[in-house]
Order: sequence, then C-alpha cells, then structure tokens
Amino acid sequence: MTASLLEQLIEALRVLPGVGQKSAQRMAYHVLERNRDGGKRLADALAAAVERIGQCSDCRDFSESEVCAICASNSRDAHLLCVVETPADRLAIEQATDYRGLYFVLHGRLSPLDGIGPRELGLDRLAGRLADGGIQEMIIATNPTVEGEATAHYLAQLARQHDVRPSRPAHGLPLGGELEYVDRGTLSHAFGSRSEVP
Amino acid sequence: MTASLLEQLIEALRVLPGVGQKSAQRMAYHVLERNRDGGKRLADALAAAVERIGQCSDCRDFSESEVCAICASNSRDAHLLCVVETPADRLAIEQATDYRGLYFVLHGRLSPLDGIGPRELGLDRLAGRLADGGIQEMIIATNPTVEGEATAHYLAQLARQHDVRPSRPAHGLPLGGELEYVDRGTLSHAFGSRSEVP
Repeated sequence: MTASLLEQLIEALRVLPGVGQKSAQRMAYHVLERNRDGGKRLADALAAAVERIGQCSDCRDFSESEVCAICASNSRDAHLLCVVETPADRLAIEQATDYRGLYFVLHGRLSPLDGIGPRELGLDRLAGRLADGGIQEMIIATNPTVEGEATAHYLAQLARQHDVRPSRPAHGLPLGGELEYVDRGTLSHAFGSRSEVP
Repeated sequence: MTASLLEQLIEALRVLPGVGQKSAQRMAYHVLERNRDGGKRLADALAAAVERIGQCSDCRDFSESEVCAICASNSRDAHLLCVVETPADRLAIEQATDYRGLYFVLHGRLSPLDGIGPRELGLDRLAGRLADGGIQEMIIATNPTVEGEATAHYLAQLARQHDVRPSRPAHGLPLGGELEYVDRGTLSHAFGSRSEVP
C-alpha cells in the first residue's frame, strides 16, 4: 500500500529543521483544518524559491537575479567588504547594525576534514574582488568557533596579500548579560582585552 | 518594491503553527542551503494535500477518496463508533489503543458563542448513522474541557434517543505521572471515582 497524501505531507514536513513526527502531524492537520489558502501559498512560495533562487555572482548570497540587490545598489560603501559564513549571518548583521558596505558569503567555513577548502568557499572569487582594488577594509565576521577562527586567520592573510586592511568585530561580554553567567572563554578573553576607562 | 521570493517564503512559512519570524527564516535558509530536493517534495506534497484531501462522507475524517480507508474496511467492528473532536485525536487513538471500531470526527466542539452548533459538527449526519441501526455503543472521546464535556453530554442524549449505549474513556491519574504534580481537578476527580481494590 502506498502512503496516503496525508502521510506523504507529514513525512515531507520533516525536512524542515526542528520538526519531528509530532510537530509535522500538528502542522499538517493545522493547514488542512484551518488554513488551506495559506498552505497553497506556502506550496507556491516554496516551489518558486527552490526553483528560482540562486547565488549572486558577486557576493554568493541567495538572489533571484544574477546580482543581488545589495551588490547592485549604488548607495552602499564599496570600500567595505564584510565576509560571513551564511546568508543568515548576513541578514542578522543587516537587521542589527548600520553597516552599509558590501558582503561576501562563504556558505561554510574551512574544514579540511569535511573536504571544505578555499575552493568550496569561493575564495578564488573573493581574491579576485580584492585584487580588483577599491576595497579598503575587509571585516571578517566568521563565527567565533575553532573552525571560524581558522577561517578568519586564512582570510586575514588573503586580505593582507592584496593590501586590504582586515578587521574583526569586537569579542567580549555581551551587553545586558550578567557576568556570573558568561562562559569562561568569553570572560577570560574579555579580561585579556580590557581597555582603560578614558 | 515587491517582496523577494525569499521574503515571500519566510512569510508563507509562518502559516505553520508554532513558527514565528525567526524559525521561518531558519527554515527557509535551511531548505535553500541544504535540502532543495526536500523543499521541492514538500511543495508538491503540500499542494497535492491541500488540493485533494477532503472529508470522508461517512466519518468526516480527512480522506482523499469519498470514503476513508477505515470506514471502507471490512475488518473494523461496525458495532462500535468513537466520536472525536479532531482528526489528530483520531490518529492518537488509532496509534495508542487497540480500538478496532469506527470513528466520527466532529471537527470542533459545541460552542454557541462562536456560532458552532450541531449543524457545524455534522451531528445530523451522526444522527443518521445512529438511526440506521447497527451501532451498539458510542464512545464519546471529546476532550475533558468545559466545552468538550458539554458536547459529550449532548452526544450522550443523542445516542440514547437512538437506543445506542453512550460511554466515555476513563478519567483519572495518568499512568507514570507523580501524584504531586497532577492538577487539582484531575486529582479530585480521581479520588471521587476511586474503585475498590479487588
């Protein structure tokens, strides 16, 4: 016996992150019972997105067109380039900060054991952009993990080879947090990098 | 400026229960970055389900065909009818118990203030099935909430009118729970309905 449409839908919903059997059931029933129009819209949006969203040829961020809106914009500061690991990181920076430069999305981090080297991260294309001139500062916003740090180190060398100034966002105590609950690594780093009160 | 495909997808994902802006973003990025095939399958499954899943003409459960698999089955006990509020309740009973009778799905509960009366719950169709004879016992498995109890009371009267024996699942302490953490209403009910140890 082949699976029913309902079973197929529940199985298919599990492709979403954080959705297990029980959540998938609840989602399927919710859509069928209360919001079939919304379900139709979601099916259409998903099909269109999967089909038509590719990568921007300049920054490798997700884009429907050859060049994404940010890369195509005249109002961005082309002297600044921010390198991030994922499109979600790019979005977080765009939403939280007033950064107005350009981006480059690695879609990963250097991880030789997983077979992810400079080529997989598009670093040849990044090197090409640095070589073109125009970029003065490269903000390396990889995650503060072991692999992210290794990637940052590699990227900083790449920047210096092209006479571009590499920089990193500040690391230290998060605002609004309590000292007591900050992890040891962060606290130790924050003490080591303390600055004099002016 | 119209919303991008990515923005449309994130917005559309919020139709799913328990999915807010942040989860929707994460889902959209996950699908685009790691599992486009899965995304395509989900889009197809969703479109097909929304389009083709209707209600069984006998039990009102979700069904692709005129009559659902359970109602059409010869191996079910047609003397037993279990009335539930939602298809999810039906599935939970089917998965957890060895009940082999038939079902009737209300798709709701009596709630006069929301304009949900006997007609909206398909009780005319239920009365028709009871009048046809054949059903000896009707298990009323509505939720133990105020509205569910009111619905159960109404259904019990309906069953008696057609000489069908109404019954309810036992209410009391959940197995494996600790007495200390059981809510007061359940504990009080369990004490009131205590039975002698044989």
